Amino acid sequence: MNSDPEKAVVLLSGGLDSAATLAIARSEGFECHTLSFKYGQRHGCEIEAARKVAASLGAAEHRVVDIDLGAFGGSALTDPAIEVPKNTPDLDHPSEIPATYVPARNTIFLSYALAWAEVLGAFDIFIGVNSTDYSGYPDCRAEFITSFEKTANLAAAAAVEGKGSYHIRTPIMDMTKGQIVETGAKLGVDFSLTHSCYDPDRQGRSCGRCDSCRLRLKGFAEAGLEDPIEYVTHNG
Amino acid sequence: MNSDPEKAVVLLSGGLDSAATLAIARSEGFECHTLSFKYGQRHGCEIEAARKVAASLGAAEHRVVDIDLGAFGGSALTDPAIEVPKNTPDLDHPSEIPATYVPARNTIFLSYALAWAEVLGAFDIFIGVNSTDYSGYPDCRAEFITSFEKTANLAAAAAVEGKGSYHIRTPIMDMTKGQIVETGAKLGVDFSLTHSCYDPDRQGRSCGRCDSCRLRLKGFAEAGLEDPIEYVTHNG
Repeated sequence: MNSDPEKAVVLLSGGLDSAATLAIARSEGFECHTLSFKYGQRHGCEIEAARKVAASLGAAEHRVVDIDLGAFGGSALTDPAIEVPKNTPDLDHPSEIPATYVPARNTIFLSYALAWAEVLGAFDIFIGVNSTDYSGYPDCRAEFITSFEKTANLAAAAAVEGKGSYHIRTPIMDMTKGQIVETGAKLGVDFSLTHSCYDPDRQGRSCGRCDSCRLRLKGFAEAGLEDPIEYVTHNG
Repeated sequence: MNSDPEKAVVLLSGGLDSAATLAIARSEGFECHTLSFKYGQRHGCEIEAARKVAASLGAAEHRVVDIDLGAFGGSALTDPAIEVPKNTPDLDHPSEIPATYVPARNTIFLSYALAWAEVLGAFDIFIGVNSTDYSGYPDCRAEFITSFEKTANLAAAAAVEGKGSYHIRTPIMDMTKGQIVETGAKLGVDFSLTHSCYDPDRQGRSCGRCDSCRLRLKGFAEAGLEDPIEYVTHNG
């Protein structure tokens, strides 16, 4: 009798969405193998946050893969020549794809997760994409995830050999930011370890003004909870 | 009036399939941006071969991205603990997925190509996959490519914004190895620059016995041409 828990690969950025996603995967009984990326992002303190969140939520193993997305340029998150947008007028309904969009980011992240899942013998891949509060990134939408899942099942040896089917799990896809904070809090996420800011200062303090900070603060406000991290400016 | 040639990203391994693919993309008038990967593969001389092939076929730009697929293990090409198979009985009809399969390799390669295509404003991505002579790798099949193309058009900002559609081009998909050699020869590929062997010796000479060498030699034999590279052993 095999009573070992099922394995899952969980993409972990160090932000609150992926922390809540990891907590959900754990609550479903998965042995979680967490995966983070160094991709030339300005906000490198994400990496340290991801490591702490993984340890705090009992991940079986945490890996950081170094990928040089900055080599291609094209995003405010990896290219110093492009400014991180602040105070976007209507955060809930962005009229165009944000400058913080990183070309093919989630496609690349999910491809690496698939590679690791194949080697681990895992069939579940968790990713903390969310379309409700932030529909500006095309590769955060359900249509993209569904299509990637289909592609994965055509790409991977174990699926083609009939050993199982890969599932790309997006448990927070339809939650509001407030619901994500609430769910994470219930499942024991220590939000003081998480990092969301696109443009932190040298001490790692969050700016409070970039889209990511504002969404985070909105989430805590909706959930009626205090955000435990430190901000440089905070008009909340 | 804009008479600049269209740009294309061409995945280039340094082997004869991708060299022929690059020659075809050039013959169609594309300005070719070639992309190679260092992925912990044993046969690192591929990288040098790719650089030479790109220069020889007039690529506009050649980039090498360093990705650590070996970190996950699971393949004879990246894991020293797994032996490269030699003298597979029936090369044309492999009964199972070969030990040289690298988990999610083409998914990862195409994801990077998509990222670069987005930044370049290219909509064509060429990949030298071939299903006729070697159906052992699931991520070389047309079903996989079609599904990845659909995924790419859901992932990428330019597609979602209606600026164009991505096409994953597989011009040698249905060719025999002999036809690939013939086509490459006609389009000016210098095969002496290419490298195919999975298990070369320290001087970079091809083993002549691994699946990749045997397919290559079969292709030259079918095309009635002499393979100009050096082999350690060669029973041809």
